[in-house]
Amino acid sequence: MISVVIIGSGNVAQHLIRIFNQSNSVNIVQVFSRKDMNMDFLIDSSKVTNQYRDLVAADLYIIAVSDNAIAEVSNQLPFKNRLVVHTSGSMSIDVLNNNNRKGVFYPLQTFSKNKNIDLKQTPICLEVQHNSDYNVLETVAQSISEKVVPINSTQRKALHVSAVFACNFVNHLYKITNDICNDNNVAFDMIKPLIMETAQKIMTLSPTAAQTGPAKRQNTAVINSHLTFLLDENQKEIYKILTKSIIDNG
Amino acid sequence: MISVVIIGSGNVAQHLIRIFNQSNSVNIVQVFSRKDMNMDFLIDSSKVTNQYRDLVAADLYIIAVSDNAIAEVSNQLPFKNRLVVHTSGSMSIDVLNNNNRKGVFYPLQTFSKNKNIDLKQTPICLEVQHNSDYNVLETVAQSISEKVVPINSTQRKALHVSAVFACNFVNHLYKITNDICNDNNVAFDMIKPLIMETAQKIMTLSPTAAQTGPAKRQNTAVINSHLTFLLDENQKEIYKILTKSIIDNG
Repeated sequence: MISVVIIGSGNVAQHLIRIFNQSNSVNIVQVFSRKDMNMDFLIDSSKVTNQYRDLVAADLYIIAVSDNAIAEVSNQLPFKNRLVVHTSGSMSIDVLNNNNRKGVFYPLQTFSKNKNIDLKQTPICLEVQHNSDYNVLETVAQSISEKVVPINSTQRKALHVSAVFACNFVNHLYKITNDICNDNNVAFDMIKPLIMETAQKIMTLSPTAAQTGPAKRQNTAVINSHLTFLLDENQKEIYKILTKSIIDNG
Repeated sequence: MISVVIIGSGNVAQHLIRIFNQSNSVNIVQVFSRKDMNMDFLIDSSKVTNQYRDLVAADLYIIAVSDNAIAEVSNQLPFKNRLVVHTSGSMSIDVLNNNNRKGVFYPLQTFSKNKNIDLKQTPICLEVQHNSDYNVLETVAQSISEKVVPINSTQRKALHVSAVFACNFVNHLYKITNDICNDNNVAFDMIKPLIMETAQKIMTLSPTAAQTGPAKRQNTAVINSHLTFLLDENQKEIYKILTKSIIDNG
């Protein structure tokens, strides 16, 4: 068993604890929660601490806190030469304090409260400062995912930017869709099968082959009637720029 | 059995023929293909015509052609007072010729070549000029979908605009994601589990509750590092406008 300390109690930390609880090769020996929050629903309270000085020995420390807090948290660790990783897609491995052996454990996924997730198909992107640390990190990652990949900081940044487009921005288009439905007394539920099919198509077709709609057909009459229909200036602007981008870039 | 003639041989027409072929309550008695294309893979060639004058009697004529061609096709029909519907999300029922009883049969879905689809969960939006025609149209729709809904032209337009955001624009964000991955030597396949989870979350969470990422957290450092990373001006512009929209509207 590989002993792991999870540092953090937010969204990603909670998902990781829940998932590692089901792993046969990882033992969560401690959780550090700065906010001293109640985590009984996830882990025995005797394993939770809010004091850095009480951190126990472990094979791996996973810092799962907000990007801005990673450096500060890693500076506070009261030990040296242990394997410490963060889980951020956007932060360099260098943000971690030099006292310890550094690494990154980045699950390429979106984590929301109130929505459990199975990470088996989720790529876990690994980066290590010392090659000798890769095996431990790989074993931990493989215990929860079938897709474990070594990824350097530049590639990870590309993946993180990609994820913003494919997840955050896509979700915002769902939000606009929801607003348009609400404003016009049609149920957002009616759009859900279309949302699923649009995602499913991309599993087997290229985005270019999958594209449909008035912009792809350069159907100016329909495009203009949509722009007339939309009253919200922000929605109009997003409609225009994405339509133009489809026409220009396919 | 309700006898149906499909007018059109494109994407939507082909999907409808394939799906109606499996229905026990609908009999496709004829397909009109202006382009005289070979449709042997879908239907017996004796049932295909390219001559309006050869159109046979039927309970329902479904015009599944491009938006721009609907009016012209309906003007060419050499009969009167029969039930004729189109399948467009964006065109009014009024675009159909007054010679016949009008209706709309709009499956709220995206149809691509080389991707079969089951319409059972797809809303079929119906509109009729004469209430007495609703039952026939409803029976046909219910033979392929569990979600059949009466929708007027204004609601249908709202749904169509919504569909552009939730499908065409979302797919274009997948396209940009694909481009970013290609430009940085990471596999687009790595993003696919995230794409599926992003869509699946929306089945149970509201878009606002589902949102994650640097824009939602107003993490300016990450946002700026992404903008520096992106070299394509079009990608930058789309990143900026969608980030601003998330910050302003949640």
